[in-house]
Amino acid sequence: MTLLREFALYFAQMDRQPYLRLNFGADTSKGRITVEQIVSVIRAQIVGRTAVAGLRLPPVRVLAHQLHVSKNTVQAAYEELKSQGLVESRNRLGLYITPPKAIQKPLSSWKIPFPEFRNIGPLEASARSRRGGINLSSVFIDPDLLPKEKIASCFRSVLTSPGLSFYSDYQGYRPLREKIAERLRKRGISAEADHIVTTIGSQQALDLTFRMLEQPKIATENPAYHLAKVLLEMNDAEMVGLPLDPFTGAPLAKWEELFRKHRPKLVYLTSNFQNPTGYSYTTQEIQQILELSERYGFAILEDDWGSDMMSFSEFRPCMRAIGGPNVLYVNSFTKKVLPSFRLGYLLANENSVETLVNAKRVSAFGMPAVIEATLFEFLDRGYYDSHLKQLHAELDERYRHALDLLRTLMPPEVRWTTPGGGPVLWVEVPERVRLSVIQERLKAKNITLAVKLSAFFGEPHLHGFMLGYAFLKPKELETGLERLAAEIRLELETR
Amino acid sequence: MTLLREFALYFAQMDRQPYLRLNFGADTSKGRITVEQIVSVIRAQIVGRTAVAGLRLPPVRVLAHQLHVSKNTVQAAYEELKSQGLVESRNRLGLYITPPKAIQKPLSSWKIPFPEFRNIGPLEASARSRRGGINLSSVFIDPDLLPKEKIASCFRSVLTSPGLSFYSDYQGYRPLREKIAERLRKRGISAEADHIVTTIGSQQALDLTFRMLEQPKIATENPAYHLAKVLLEMNDAEMVGLPLDPFTGAPLAKWEELFRKHRPKLVYLTSNFQNPTGYSYTTQEIQQILELSERYGFAILEDDWGSDMMSFSEFRPCMRAIGGPNVLYVNSFTKKVLPSFRLGYLLANENSVETLVNAKRVSAFGMPAVIEATLFEFLDRGYYDSHLKQLHAELDERYRHALDLLRTLMPPEVRWTTPGGGPVLWVEVPERVRLSVIQERLKAKNITLAVKLSAFFGEPHLHGFMLGYAFLKPKELETGLERLAAEIRLELETR
Repeated sequence: MTLLREFALYFAQMDRQPYLRLNFGADTSKGRITVEQIVSVIRAQIVGRTAVAGLRLPPVRVLAHQLHVSKNTVQAAYEELKSQGLVESRNRLGLYITPPKAIQKPLSSWKIPFPEFRNIGPLEASARSRRGGINLSSVFIDPDLLPKEKIASCFRSVLTSPGLSFYSDYQGYRPLREKIAERLRKRGISAEADHIVTTIGSQQALDLTFRMLEQPKIATENPAYHLAKVLLEMNDAEMVGLPLDPFTGAPLAKWEELFRKHRPKLVYLTSNFQNPTGYSYTTQEIQQILELSERYGFAILEDDWGSDMMSFSEFRPCMRAIGGPNVLYVNSFTKKVLPSFRLGYLLANENSVETLVNAKRVSAFGMPAVIEATLFEFLDRGYYDSHLKQLHAELDERYRHALDLLRTLMPPEVRWTTPGGGPVLWVEVPERVRLSVIQERLKAKNITLAVKLSAFFGEPHLHGFMLGYAFLKPKELETGLERLAAEIRLELETR
Repeated sequence: MTLLREFALYFAQMDRQPYLRLNFGADTSKGRITVEQIVSVIRAQIVGRTAVAGLRLPPVRVLAHQLHVSKNTVQAAYEELKSQGLVESRNRLGLYITPPKAIQKPLSSWKIPFPEFRNIGPLEASARSRRGGINLSSVFIDPDLLPKEKIASCFRSVLTSPGLSFYSDYQGYRPLREKIAERLRKRGISAEADHIVTTIGSQQALDLTFRMLEQPKIATENPAYHLAKVLLEMNDAEMVGLPLDPFTGAPLAKWEELFRKHRPKLVYLTSNFQNPTGYSYTTQEIQQILELSERYGFAILEDDWGSDMMSFSEFRPCMRAIGGPNVLYVNSFTKKVLPSFRLGYLLANENSVETLVNAKRVSAFGMPAVIEATLFEFLDRGYYDSHLKQLHAELDERYRHALDLLRTLMPPEVRWTTPGGGPVLWVEVPERVRLSVIQERLKAKNITLAVKLSAFFGEPHLHGFMLGYAFLKPKELETGLERLAAEIRLELETR
């Protein structure tokens, strides 16, 4: 006889075997079920069914508990089934359904169809550095600059008081939302806790917004933030790429043409350190984009992940600050505090917040409450502000160092942007330099350089790459840039 | 002159005012930018633009840092701009763009369009009890039965070692996935860590599966788990309702008709304690459903949230155990460990796991890593097993108590299911009892009873409600059921 093979090993050891789940219908609620009824229900479920053979009947105590009857009642029914030859005792392991003559269907023979899934992508491999390697393309911050000990201290405090809470708030832990609103107001942004929704990093905030649009016709920068582009594809969005040049900015006359032609419903823009160009919009561009929003009737989703990484950025108005509460605003603490924390938020407004909270509730309920409470504690103790102060000083130093290295090492035909601090800049190389060749050669030396061709809509209008200087120690950046410069020189000389 | 009003209060206090973000184009990378170039770029961005007036120029040190030039260079350029009348000093606060004659555009006048969002729902209000109230319809477990102190202890230990990790694993913390796979194998389920994806509760697991289907034509129980039904709507799924009767089970001949007619691509079923019926499929039904899956070519998504709440359930094969690795399997620790933990998982297989991990990465990256590490610790110390043992004993007691109360209190025309333990059962009342009236009357007495009409596809074939006995203390359940029974009697007597 063929047992359900996957169970065999474990249950053999345990002296216990899988048993049948049985249903006794409506008659059980008053506890008036009789021995005859039990026999008849089990008999009906066994006779003529071959597949269940090999399983045992529920233990007497289990069935008595289920039916709320005495063990004697069940025992009597089982004796009757035995006498009818439908079940048999086996080695004190219980009562088993007697194997019929028919061959059993073995476990492995089930041919359950496999779900047909959509393709998304292509997805870039994660640009995480291999051990000992140098990742020139990370948008992350050097882990050694992150306040792990202070976060741990906040955790310990939350575990003691207020302690682990039972529920998550769908919208997000209220004290945290209030604290975030207070911080935003200090930056000149009209914000209320009622209009803030916490999210799993900023990525979930983008997802909720994209997927809830009545007509997902969305414009974003070209080159685009790669994972937002894939997310738009996943949401079946019609996409419009708005060309961006990290040196000269947004060609707004060209954008206006595109708005006129394609009439996007939403424009998703990263106001500071756009990935991958590293570009930050000027105040003038922000104002012109807002004017275009009025003229062409598109909503705006502003991603402000980068501004916290730049000195004095709190004094520069963002799109939400100037454009007011109809601009949806996304930010996140993850990169600046700890990437594995996964805590972002969406600042919506009174007209949109309910939809977004519902979408969050239906697709994920809430965030782990203890994470939200810990971040609240981190903000409330002033740790975030003191952390940012130190972080800015360190990043400014790394920015200067990166510019010095570029000036010293790069051939004259290479140029780069000067974003003024933060985590990344754009390096543009002459057309004849084969970036894919350089990328492969550096990979052999354990250096990661991401050439994000998939971030472009169509033919790339740039020929370069993002350089992340916040992730690497000064010495690592130096080594990485030396090798990169050598490869670029080699390409320039031989082609 | 109209300042950006929202900034006024804060920046006035701070003696700092918002400043312009400027872009200097390609010429800055070699640090060769001259005083004349700075003047020309700023001049070009000011002249003719009225909206930027009221903002100040970046402080000298900020612009010098951005451009990587000396402060003297910037200072000289600013002096030149002043002498041209384009900017003016104000109270040592910095240089401001000279207000032109034209009227400024005040902040509040922007008319940024509001995003047009889709409607989902209607969503039931959360069935959380009001303070001091009695919630007869909760699927949750009494918070006092949850192992908060043990979780906190695991947290403290994780914070010490391994400590807070930098990244989240997109797929889920590997040691946790291994531990889960090991547990599943003990239940006779073929499972590998490589095929497990952690999720934000089981809800995200459902969402990832539904949204990635090539053809979202999905069948599920009627009545359906309410939030899965809304989630299906949100994913534009074509839905097929499979009638389920908590007393007599699944009418599989009827199901077969529906499969033949509608040809769903995926069938989503809750194998134990289906919400709201509280029904658990018999082994025989599981096998017949698997046969139908083969015959009608639908994939299966099994939601097994309930089995861990039932004594001896580890010895009952689920759909994944019998049907093999093509059955997608969802489970979660949240209700059993702590709802605010939000940790569920999806057991996929080698053909589907990449798609699901990519979908998770693109829509949310990963879970907070510390939550995953803490749950691993909780499992690894054996806390989950010892917790379940205590929980089963307590829930068995509450189950017996609930049945005793129902027998004592309810009029003879009322009947209920006997699921054998766990958290919930179904109570069916005569047609002439007006459930909405009872619901309202109980509400006035601070007792929550959820009548889930929206869970049905079309006209309900049941006339009753789910009763949750795991959430309430015995005394609360008694009070709640006494009042419920009184209301039912009143309805029966007066109609």
